Amino acid sequence: MPELRQNLATREWVIIATERAKRPHDYVQPHQHLLTEAQLPYDPTCPFCPGHEELDLEIERMPVNGPWQTRVVENKFPALSPKGELARTFDGVHRSIYGLGYHEILVEHPSHNTTLALMSATDIDVVLQTFYSRGWDITRDARIEQIIFFKNHGIQAGATLKHPHSQIVALPVVPNNIRYRIEEARRYFDDNGHCVYCVMMQDELEKGIRVIDTSQHFVAFALYASPSPFHVWIMPRQHSVSFLFARKEELADLAQILRRVLRRLYLGLRDPAYNLVIRTAPAKEIGEDYLHWYVTIIPRLNSTAGFELGSGMFINTALPEESAIFLREVEI
Amino acid sequence: MPELRQNLATREWVIIATERAKRPHDYVQPHQHLLTEAQLPYDPTCPFCPGHEELDLEIERMPVNGPWQTRVVENKFPALSPKGELARTFDGVHRSIYGLGYHEILVEHPSHNTTLALMSATDIDVVLQTFYSRGWDITRDARIEQIIFFKNHGIQAGATLKHPHSQIVALPVVPNNIRYRIEEARRYFDDNGHCVYCVMMQDELEKGIRVIDTSQHFVAFALYASPSPFHVWIMPRQHSVSFLFARKEELADLAQILRRVLRRLYLGLRDPAYNLVIRTAPAKEIGEDYLHWYVTIIPRLNSTAGFELGSGMFINTALPEESAIFLREVEI
Repeated sequence: MPELRQNLATREWVIIATERAKRPHDYVQPHQHLLTEAQLPYDPTCPFCPGHEELDLEIERMPVNGPWQTRVVENKFPALSPKGELARTFDGVHRSIYGLGYHEILVEHPSHNTTLALMSATDIDVVLQTFYSRGWDITRDARIEQIIFFKNHGIQAGATLKHPHSQIVALPVVPNNIRYRIEEARRYFDDNGHCVYCVMMQDELEKGIRVIDTSQHFVAFALYASPSPFHVWIMPRQHSVSFLFARKEELADLAQILRRVLRRLYLGLRDPAYNLVIRTAPAKEIGEDYLHWYVTIIPRLNSTAGFELGSGMFINTALPEESAIFLREVEI
Repeated sequence: MPELRQNLATREWVIIATERAKRPHDYVQPHQHLLTEAQLPYDPTCPFCPGHEELDLEIERMPVNGPWQTRVVENKFPALSPKGELARTFDGVHRSIYGLGYHEILVEHPSHNTTLALMSATDIDVVLQTFYSRGWDITRDARIEQIIFFKNHGIQAGATLKHPHSQIVALPVVPNNIRYRIEEARRYFDDNGHCVYCVMMQDELEKGIRVIDTSQHFVAFALYASPSPFHVWIMPRQHSVSFLFARKEELADLAQILRRVLRRLYLGLRDPAYNLVIRTAPAKEIGEDYLHWYVTIIPRLNSTAGFELGSGMFINTALPEESAIFLREVEI
């Protein structure tokens, strides 16, 4: 029986299309060569491999001395530029802003043929610390309103370079989509006196059927109103509006659970393409207590088409409860 | 110089990434076999080709007697079903609706190897009349809140069947995305006393630089804040909230300009994949005068990745003004 489900936090409806639903194992990528088989650990033409780094583009590295574990470099073809004045232009009905912002690449590891799912939790912790460090640095730039921390893994997820990397884009505006989420969270708080994300997470913990993994500080679950197959949220148990408020031990714990969840996807579905996003509050609104930051992992196992573009709604052909069981049972 | 541009109607910002911008001819699909070369006009295994139609799924055909020109059939694997009661369920923090709605396929032509760009304006007019007819029929079902009329053309646009077809999905809710558009249009009307879409179209006609084609009743233009390369709006000159208010001569005129615009894309870019959506008011809100219906054509020439998923914003690597010149100059 087909069903529409509402995301309590965003109030967005998704269609869970049971008539066209596939079983979890239908999403296994049979032709995908696993990374370590397909590539060598070092590529002499790769600008991110040690030995021929583009040092002029480097912004930060960890550790600062000795061989690096992570590096942050300017994107060679940035969508936005940190140079210039923040100027809004009004020209009749047209409003534009000079494309001021940051567009950086976070090189996650010296090895060319690894990925988060194959790294140690210690390595992933350094990646998270690098995000955190750049996040605070960029937040100090008063021209920035929103930072998007994300990762594209695999061609279907928009990755054009193979060396494991994430990206950081900092914007001079708060995107509408994020503004709407804040408004909905605030409305829920006004009505109910608590955070809607906390309520959702507590419910998942109580029911347990969509929980994929848990750690001391985080809960990973398949969203009840998942817009796409194997959509995962990893949420801090402690209410907090911003990733930039995460404590050192929370980052270390996140590295552990993130590794386990990504291994479940990697081993269970044979390295599917995915996007990962850290959803966090606008740079200047970390004092407002309505949002709740989390990490979302969006495997790219289907395509969006005219219906999604025309409605903004999604049709999900996987039952979240089945996806959760499948991922829970993967031996990691 | 990178630039953020705002869509006046939705207030959404897009990044026009000039640093990574491509020239219009970079978007030509060099390896695409043109349809008539790659396929035969009749496929004995196709359920939409004449001679072995699945008559039990048929809802409507045009003309009613004699050989059909268009047919509407139930989707064999529908995302939503018209059978059943409209029932909302509240279960703690979870809200669901029985997946009530319509999911229909509009077979656009008897020939297997044609597409709108290759049809006559008369043929396209019949397709539009079929949309119109189904639209009114479905609107009479009081359980329906929103109809999405759309087309997926090409694999990258989500089309799984080759026979030329469109789709109609009718929903028991108004999607948030459409609700936001109505709210923004109403707010603009409250502030300025006229329709924001009319203002945008008038400005495009005056400036002319982004106009791609015009007809007696419609204007086709590249949106100033285009979220993706070669994004086109075809808008009725006469203010109207709903496609279902279009008069017979307007549909015939739309068929003409739609054919010309699709030919520009087909011949200029060598049959790119695209989605087409008729953006129109919710079924029960056609008496409210804030929206302005239009047709949007979204060629699928790039992919969305973590940034788009995380921010809801888009990075466009094509300059809309250049796209408009390119499409205007295609000999059709």
